[in-house]
Amino acid sequence: MGIFSKDIKTLDDLFVHTLQDIYYAEQQITKALPQMIAKVSDPQLKQAFQTHLSETEQQIQMVEQVFRMHGHDPKGVTCPAIDGIIDESQEIAGEVEDPQVLDAALLAAAQAVEHYEITRYGTLVAWAKQLGRQDCAAVLHQILEQEKATDAKLNRIAESKINQQAA
Amino acid sequence: MGIFSKDIKTLDDLFVHTLQDIYYAEQQITKALPQMIAKVSDPQLKQAFQTHLSETEQQIQMVEQVFRMHGHDPKGVTCPAIDGIIDESQEIAGEVEDPQVLDAALLAAAQAVEHYEITRYGTLVAWAKQLGRQDCAAVLHQILEQEKATDAKLNRIAESKINQQAA
Repeated sequence: MGIFSKDIKTLDDLFVHTLQDIYYAEQQITKALPQMIAKVSDPQLKQAFQTHLSETEQQIQMVEQVFRMHGHDPKGVTCPAIDGIIDESQEIAGEVEDPQVLDAALLAAAQAVEHYEITRYGTLVAWAKQLGRQDCAAVLHQILEQEKATDAKLNRIAESKINQQAA
Repeated sequence: MGIFSKDIKTLDDLFVHTLQDIYYAEQQITKALPQMIAKVSDPQLKQAFQTHLSETEQQIQMVEQVFRMHGHDPKGVTCPAIDGIIDESQEIAGEVEDPQVLDAALLAAAQAVEHYEITRYGTLVAWAKQLGRQDCAAVLHQILEQEKATDAKLNRIAESKINQQAA
């Protein structure tokens, strides 16, 4: 955010701006995930990150679809929140040597990313509905459900093995 | 994060580091919330933010309690994630003139903060249990439940009035 000033006049403008924010965020996530995949040791966690990378690439296309349904060209705006979340994950990865403790740290970092996406898509779905755009809401809701499922899957992997291996 | 390097050897170290991260985050939130309260127009939303500020002040004390239970002095480490989330909320607030659209933007920003807290406390509870620290887990779980309740309350306020007023 921050590229334009006082340009948000209506809820519709705010909706488009937040769509631009998450579009930028998803692109940053596709850049960060390969580094996280390279650092992970546990094969199941590595696979979960790889699946999430593929899903993120599809989600970018779905967000582009929402832009077009709403009559806008897809465009991102810098999102300090996702930049901060990714910076933090890279910093923590640099501070841990033990591969099993690192897996636990990377899994937690991935869940922080998921929760950012969950909150933003949740808001976007609510605003799309309020604006009478059930079509946009339906696509955004589909992404939201994918993000929630990824977070739940990461929870299961954390509690069933990664945290035990790290302890 | 980022103050020390390769100092995280064990899951216990990672737990303490993440506790320091959320301790810093809670302090930044207590600094940011009064500005958000000043900008909000809707009385119910203003009240919800005020309640959250009081809760955050109590949660800081609860996190301090967990530090002491675990044999550490309370200390924060810079957390780029919360800094980014707060920066983004301040930027968006500067881009919206209409007070009712601004309320919708501030409410969404507050939910982004909540989700960051939910993911971090969720992780901390899981790690405390894995480390056999049921005492720490119990306090952290209590905070986690408060954060989830705040997020749910914000959802209700958004969907019952704030989004309608903004549209």
